[in-house]
Amino acid sequence: MLRDSAVQPLLTDFYQFTMAYGYWKCGREDTVAVFELYFRENPLGGQFTIFAGLQECLRFLSKFQLTEEDVQFLQSVLPPTTEEGFYNYLRSIDTSTVTLRAVPEGSVVFPKVALLEVEGPLAIVQLLETPLLTLVNYASLVATNAARFRLAAGPEKRLLEFGLRRAQGPDGGVSASKYSYIGGFDGTSNVLAGKLYGIPLFGSMAHSYITSFTSMSEVKVQTLKAASEGQATVDFVSLCETWLGRVCHLLQVSRDQINSSELAAFTSYAMTYPANFIALVDTYSVMRSGVPNFCAVSLALNDMGYRTHGLRLDSGDLVKQSLKIRSMFQACAKEFGVSWFSDVPIIISNGISEKDLINLQNQRNEVDSIGVGTNLVTCPLQPSLGCVYKLTQVCGKARIKVTEDKGKMTLPGKKTVYRLYDLDGSPFLDLLTLHGESAPKAGEEIHCHVLNGRDDGLQVIAARVEALQLVYYQHGRLSEGPCTTSEIRSYAQNSLNNLHPKHKHLQDAVPYQVAISLKLRDLLNDLTKESEPIARHPE
Amino acid sequence: MLRDSAVQPLLTDFYQFTMAYGYWKCGREDTVAVFELYFRENPLGGQFTIFAGLQECLRFLSKFQLTEEDVQFLQSVLPPTTEEGFYNYLRSIDTSTVTLRAVPEGSVVFPKVALLEVEGPLAIVQLLETPLLTLVNYASLVATNAARFRLAAGPEKRLLEFGLRRAQGPDGGVSASKYSYIGGFDGTSNVLAGKLYGIPLFGSMAHSYITSFTSMSEVKVQTLKAASEGQATVDFVSLCETWLGRVCHLLQVSRDQINSSELAAFTSYAMTYPANFIALVDTYSVMRSGVPNFCAVSLALNDMGYRTHGLRLDSGDLVKQSLKIRSMFQACAKEFGVSWFSDVPIIISNGISEKDLINLQNQRNEVDSIGVGTNLVTCPLQPSLGCVYKLTQVCGKARIKVTEDKGKMTLPGKKTVYRLYDLDGSPFLDLLTLHGESAPKAGEEIHCHVLNGRDDGLQVIAARVEALQLVYYQHGRLSEGPCTTSEIRSYAQNSLNNLHPKHKHLQDAVPYQVAISLKLRDLLNDLTKESEPIARHPE
Repeated sequence: MLRDSAVQPLLTDFYQFTMAYGYWKCGREDTVAVFELYFRENPLGGQFTIFAGLQECLRFLSKFQLTEEDVQFLQSVLPPTTEEGFYNYLRSIDTSTVTLRAVPEGSVVFPKVALLEVEGPLAIVQLLETPLLTLVNYASLVATNAARFRLAAGPEKRLLEFGLRRAQGPDGGVSASKYSYIGGFDGTSNVLAGKLYGIPLFGSMAHSYITSFTSMSEVKVQTLKAASEGQATVDFVSLCETWLGRVCHLLQVSRDQINSSELAAFTSYAMTYPANFIALVDTYSVMRSGVPNFCAVSLALNDMGYRTHGLRLDSGDLVKQSLKIRSMFQACAKEFGVSWFSDVPIIISNGISEKDLINLQNQRNEVDSIGVGTNLVTCPLQPSLGCVYKLTQVCGKARIKVTEDKGKMTLPGKKTVYRLYDLDGSPFLDLLTLHGESAPKAGEEIHCHVLNGRDDGLQVIAARVEALQLVYYQHGRLSEGPCTTSEIRSYAQNSLNNLHPKHKHLQDAVPYQVAISLKLRDLLNDLTKESEPIARHPE
Repeated sequence: MLRDSAVQPLLTDFYQFTMAYGYWKCGREDTVAVFELYFRENPLGGQFTIFAGLQECLRFLSKFQLTEEDVQFLQSVLPPTTEEGFYNYLRSIDTSTVTLRAVPEGSVVFPKVALLEVEGPLAIVQLLETPLLTLVNYASLVATNAARFRLAAGPEKRLLEFGLRRAQGPDGGVSASKYSYIGGFDGTSNVLAGKLYGIPLFGSMAHSYITSFTSMSEVKVQTLKAASEGQATVDFVSLCETWLGRVCHLLQVSRDQINSSELAAFTSYAMTYPANFIALVDTYSVMRSGVPNFCAVSLALNDMGYRTHGLRLDSGDLVKQSLKIRSMFQACAKEFGVSWFSDVPIIISNGISEKDLINLQNQRNEVDSIGVGTNLVTCPLQPSLGCVYKLTQVCGKARIKVTEDKGKMTLPGKKTVYRLYDLDGSPFLDLLTLHGESAPKAGEEIHCHVLNGRDDGLQVIAARVEALQLVYYQHGRLSEGPCTTSEIRSYAQNSLNNLHPKHKHLQDAVPYQVAISLKLRDLLNDLTKESEPIARHPE
C-alpha cells in the first residue's frame, strides 16, 4: 500500500524516543499505561466530528517494529552516552502486548470522548503517540469538513473532490480524497485514490486541452459512428458546424464570436467520448462561445444517438450563469425537439467554499454537480483538529495533568464510554464512566455530571445504551477484518443521519452533551486537589 | 525514498488521462507543447515566495513510467470504447523527450514567472500537470511560511518545527518538516524527516512523561556519575532533594506546593540525560512547582559538572513567564554562584503564530527557542499557494487562455526570464521575454511593460542581468546531481538575504516588479484580440 512506506515507527516526534530511554533507564518501560486520544473542541465551528483514520492506525500498529537501520539512525542522534541495552530493547519491541479500543471508524464523535484508548507497556504506547495523532487528526478533520460540505449542499447535489494539487503534498492529497469520500463526497479526480480505495473517478478536460487546438484542421478524423449498431458513420465535423449555425441563430450569438479552437477541441473530445461528453466552457466567452459550441456539439451527438453528460463552469458568477445556461438548454430542447437537453447536468468548480454552498442552497440555481478543491482539502476554517494523546492511568493508578490552563486538564483513569439514545433512536448523551463501574441501564435513571455545563448534576433516562468503544487490536491481532472505504462511508453517513438535526447546524448548533459519572467526578476532584497544592495554599 | 511510492504517474487528476486519450485520438499526442507552472499572487499577504519542490519534481520525472497494473486500472475506469492502441501507447511512454527548465530551488520568486517550464509531447506533458503542481504547491507555501516566521522572529531565535501531528497525514508532516527547514527553521521534532533529509532533531519530554511518575520511589537508580573522569558517583536523588530545599527558600516557594511526581520525572530524566537535560515545566504550577523543580535538578547537575540545556513552557502567557523565569534563574545564579545559570535557554511552544512572533520581537522577552506546529505546517493565513500549469505554446504557436476573469489570463508563448539586479546586488525586476529575443544587457536601457502596473512602459538599467531558469532535465537525464536539503536551505537563505527589505515586510510590503518585453506585450495584445472577438463586438 501507498502509505506503508510513510507510516513507520520513525514517523514520530523525537521526544517519544528520548522519553522511552528515560522510562527504560528507570526500569519502567513495561509498566502498564493507558493513553487516550481525543480532541477538546469540535472543529470548524460545528458541534460534531466524524472520526476517521482508524483503519490506518490498525495497519500501523500491526506492523510496528523498528528496523536495524532505524535503530542505527537513532544511535546517531541520541546522546553518545545512551546505553547499548536500550538499543537492544528497541530492536525487540512490537505491539503484541498493546490493546487498542476505539470508537468505530465513521462514528459521529464529540469532545473529550476517547476515540482511541491505547493500553500497554509505557515506553511502547508512548512511542505510538505521534503516528496515531498524525493518522487521526487530518483524516477526521477532512471527513468532518466533507460532511459539512454535504450538509451545506443538501443531499441532491453531486459533490466531487478536486483537491489533489492543493493538498499538503502527494499523500496529503490521497488522504484528502479518501476521507472526503467517507465524509459524504461522491467522487474524486485523484486517480491513485480511485485505485487504492475504489472511489468513483471524475474528470473531463482542462483549459489546456482547449487552448492546445487552433482550428478544425487539427481534428484529424472527421467521421463518427452512430450509437446504434448498423447505423451510418457520418462526417461529424460538418455536422457540428451545421449545428453551430442553428444554435447561434437560436441563441442570437454572432458566428464571428465563436472561438474556433474551442469548437475544434469540443468536436474532437466528443468524437473521443461520444457516450461520455463533458466540456469546460469558460476558456473564452462562456455565453458567446463556450455554451453555443457545447450545444452545437451536444446536438450533433444527439443526432448520432448519444447523450451529453454535462458542462463545466470554472469562473465568474457560477449561479447566475447556471440559470442562464439552463434557459439556453431549454430553448434548444424546445426549438430542436430534444427534450432531454433541458436537463443536461451543469457542473461548477472554482474555489468553492462551505459558505458558497450555503448560499447556493438559499437561491435559485441550476447546478447539478460541484467540484471542490482547496477549501475542502485544506480546511481553511480550521486547519487542524487538535487531537491530543494523554496518559490516564499508570500501573493501575489514575493520572491527571492539571496545568494552569483549565481547558487542557485531562480526565483521569481508564474509562468506559456509553452512548445514550432517546426513544427516536437519536443519541443524546455520551457518558464517561470509570472502568469497572456498572454499566448504565436503559430505562433506569442515570445520575451524571455534564462536562463544561453548570456545576449541577443531571438525571437522564435512556431508551437504549450502547458501549461506544470496541476492542480492535489485542495480542498482536486485529479483532476483525479491515473495513472497506465504502463500508466506512456508509457507517459515517448513517451515524450522521441518526444525529439530531439541532447538532448538525453548520453554525450555532446545540452542543451535544458529554457527561462523566459521579465516581469519575469524585476521582477528578480528588486528583485535582492532590496534584494542585496551590488550591490549598492560596497566595 | 519515502515518497517514491506516493509520487507515481497515477497520482494525477483523471482528466489528464481523458485528455491524453483525446490527444491520441487526434494523432496529436506527440505534438510539441510547452507548459508553464507559476502562481498568480504571492501567498500569506506578502510580496515574495520561496520556490521549493524541484528536487522531488526531478525525481518524479526521471522515473515516470506507467506499470502494467496502472494501465489495467485505467482500462477499468475509462470508457469501454477506449481503443487498445491507447493503452499500448500508455505502456510505451516515458519522459525521455521532455525538457524541464526551472528556477533553482530555494530562489525567491514572484507571480507570473514560470517556476517550471515543461516542453515535450503534448499528451505526456499534460499527464505531468497534477503531480508537478502537487509537489511544488505545498512545498513552496510552507517554505515561504517558514521564511516569514524566520523574518518575524528575527535571526537570533532558534526556530523548531513541531507540526507532524497536525499535518495532512504522514507525508504532509514529512514535507512540512523538510520545507520548513529550507525556509529557515533550525530543526524539527520529526524523526523520519531528520533521517531522510539530515535535519537537526529536537525533543525532550511530553506531559505524559511527568504524569507517568507518582513519587521519587519510581526513580530506581539513585546514583549519578560526575561528568569528569575519575570523579565520584553520588546519590543524585538526595542531592536534588537538598537543592530543592535551597531553591524553595530562595524563591519563597512553599515546599508543600512542589509536585513530587514532577520532581521524580525531572530527576529521572536528568539522570538519563545529564549532559542534555531539558524539562517541560507546566504540567502543574509553573512558578510554584515546575521552575523550582527545574532549578533544583539543574543545580544538582551543576554540582556533577553538567550544564542544563533548557526549559520548555507550553501554556499560559509565554512572554511574561519567560521574564519571571529569567529573573528566577538570575537569582539562583547569584545566590549559588553559578553564573551560567542566568542564561539557561527558555523554549516556548503552544499554538504560536506569525503574529505572536511579531509581538515577541516588539516586547521585552527572555525566549531563546520557539517550537511551532499547527500555524507553520497548515499555513492558516492561506492554506494553498494556488500554482497553475498552463499551456503557452503548441507546435511552435503561442497559445493563450483569455477567459472573462482577467486575473486568470495566461501569458502566451515560450519565454525566457531574466532577473535584473541593481548596483547593490539586489534584484529589482524580473523580465519575461519571448524565446529567441535578444537578451537584455547590463548597463543598457531596457524597455518593458510592468504587469499589473499602470499601462505605461518602463525603462530600466540593470547593473547585472541573470537568466533565471536553467535546464534541469533533458533527454531523460538530470543536468546535475541532486542538491542536498541543506544546500537548498542555504540557497534559499541567500536568495532571501539578497532581496531588498522593502519586499520582505510581512504586511504592506512593496511589490517586486515583474515585467514583460515589448514583443511579448504585442503578442499578448494580438492573441487577446484574436481569441476574444467580444472585444471587437461590444454588446
